[in-house]
Amino acid sequence: MRNLLAVDAGGTSTRAVVLTPAGQCVGYGVAGSGNPISSGIEHAAREVVKATAAALAQAGSAAPDAHGAHDAMAGTAEIAVLAMAGSRTYVSTDWITSALAAIDVRGRIVLESDLLATFCSGAWEQDGYAVVAGTGSAAIRVHGGRQEASADGLGWLLGDDGSGFWLGARTVRAVAAELDNRGPRTALTPLLLAALEIPPDASTEPGYDGRPDALRLLLDAVYALRPIELARFAPLVFAAGDDEVATGILADARSALHTTLAAIDSAIVRGPVVCGGGVLGTLGLPIDGLRGVTEVRTVADGAVGAAVLALRANGTAVDWEVFERVRETLAGLR
Amino acid sequence: MRNLLAVDAGGTSTRAVVLTPAGQCVGYGVAGSGNPISSGIEHAAREVVKATAAALAQAGSAAPDAHGAHDAMAGTAEIAVLAMAGSRTYVSTDWITSALAAIDVRGRIVLESDLLATFCSGAWEQDGYAVVAGTGSAAIRVHGGRQEASADGLGWLLGDDGSGFWLGARTVRAVAAELDNRGPRTALTPLLLAALEIPPDASTEPGYDGRPDALRLLLDAVYALRPIELARFAPLVFAAGDDEVATGILADARSALHTTLAAIDSAIVRGPVVCGGGVLGTLGLPIDGLRGVTEVRTVADGAVGAAVLALRANGTAVDWEVFERVRETLAGLR
Repeated sequence: MRNLLAVDAGGTSTRAVVLTPAGQCVGYGVAGSGNPISSGIEHAAREVVKATAAALAQAGSAAPDAHGAHDAMAGTAEIAVLAMAGSRTYVSTDWITSALAAIDVRGRIVLESDLLATFCSGAWEQDGYAVVAGTGSAAIRVHGGRQEASADGLGWLLGDDGSGFWLGARTVRAVAAELDNRGPRTALTPLLLAALEIPPDASTEPGYDGRPDALRLLLDAVYALRPIELARFAPLVFAAGDDEVATGILADARSALHTTLAAIDSAIVRGPVVCGGGVLGTLGLPIDGLRGVTEVRTVADGAVGAAVLALRANGTAVDWEVFERVRETLAGLR
Repeated sequence: MRNLLAVDAGGTSTRAVVLTPAGQCVGYGVAGSGNPISSGIEHAAREVVKATAAALAQAGSAAPDAHGAHDAMAGTAEIAVLAMAGSRTYVSTDWITSALAAIDVRGRIVLESDLLATFCSGAWEQDGYAVVAGTGSAAIRVHGGRQEASADGLGWLLGDDGSGFWLGARTVRAVAAELDNRGPRTALTPLLLAALEIPPDASTEPGYDGRPDALRLLLDAVYALRPIELARFAPLVFAAGDDEVATGILADARSALHTTLAAIDSAIVRGPVVCGGGVLGTLGLPIDGLRGVTEVRTVADGAVGAAVLALRANGTAVDWEVFERVRETLAGLR
């Protein structure tokens, strides 16, 4: 039987896995953003192809005896699962089918949600929850292996509570408030000014209207960004130590993500909550008062989950043993 | 002596006043946005000219005996004061000088801050404070007739706490949270859906992902706007009655504007705080705990203040009597 292909196409980077129908990962590749919504279809297709070609190349060199180097390199796959944000919006798979066909990958292509891939990266069980907080934030409930409910993921203007954007926006506002004499002193101020290469003495030097010159420089720097780019300042909140303003922002983020999970929590669906995304890995998610959530697990990305979804799409039942095989063989390739 | 011209150029509308050097208002005109930052220089100049021409026409027809209709219509003015947001940024007055010269207004042109015009609309005193909350929000301290300190006015992304944008953004997020099962039920939801012409039954009908269809329609509608346009939903917060979410938002806005005023409050500068802008007129400003603020006054716009600033620029001392003359004669023209 031919190998399977699993792609976890994220907004920052894309991971491709080639695995056998028994769950043995034999190739792994990484590329840039494969999200067609944030990066455009052409760019996304190019990065998916790049990660896939790297995974296929590794699969080919790793298993020359079993299949012959040439066959494995040829890249045909039984099933290709592509996990990505907005998978439900992209009903047509033409854009990726033709891109993959160009490198001779011609299997059936199945789009899956990135949140489901996150869940399956941390759980072989078919019931449970996933919460992702990276640039944006969202939660899903998984029942019988299917995503049956979701919360938030509404974007920076309407939602994404507790996300990287949300942390970054709170950060720049807190710093502006301190410089404007409207808010308390915070360790976020020197951190943000350094990140924006604003000289530290600008925060004491008075500018043209009596306020610190750093405030004007902060205004210029922040309004030169697209709003969503404020997410890049989220790490400062974690770097600010026991600063009162920063710990307050982090507590609010935890509470917001708890509320998002609570919106889809159900006593009928009992299982683990799998946490993903750059923010949530560091933040930690409280699960007090939830009825369906049994424990918290954290994953780095959705690569294992995309592989699990490829196995299931191929008719393989993924029990604990198969799940562990995927995890361990993929860890060996990374 | 020739008449004076005073223009209060706001982001929504522009008001022009023609007055005698004694403070007798003899002409009044209104036009659209005269703010070069939000509307561009060409549009702003056109609207300032339109309001001015209307004011000059009224001045001409009102006083045919004293000066002769023709002379008054000619429009020469000793001094023209133009009060507007960002007045300190526009050091050059060329754009408005040439526009006014085209209708034969050739006096000295003085740019003043819109916040100072707000203060002078409500106070003949030379010491005190002004707080404006319209689309944005800001506060100033006035000492000896000059603006000596300011707070906020940092725009929707970094500040403008308690402003129309701030209220509108809180509103759409609260409605999204209710529809997403993350927030409490609020009277803002039917009000906002009606404002966006989203059918009320869409809030109960499930959409493609199990969430109400109204949520998807809200997303489409809100992301089609420029962020700053969320300010248009601020009136809904006032219309929501004793709704808990809405009253919470209003209490937070009052508190935020109090904080902005407190940032520049000084025991040395004692006087009234003059409140302006669409939001603050309805909201009400608490002044507890402030050292310099003696009382709260509210004004509709900066027209009286622009006239007061024109008189002062012309060397007229504006005492209570002159101030009242400006107020009353302008009220008679509106």
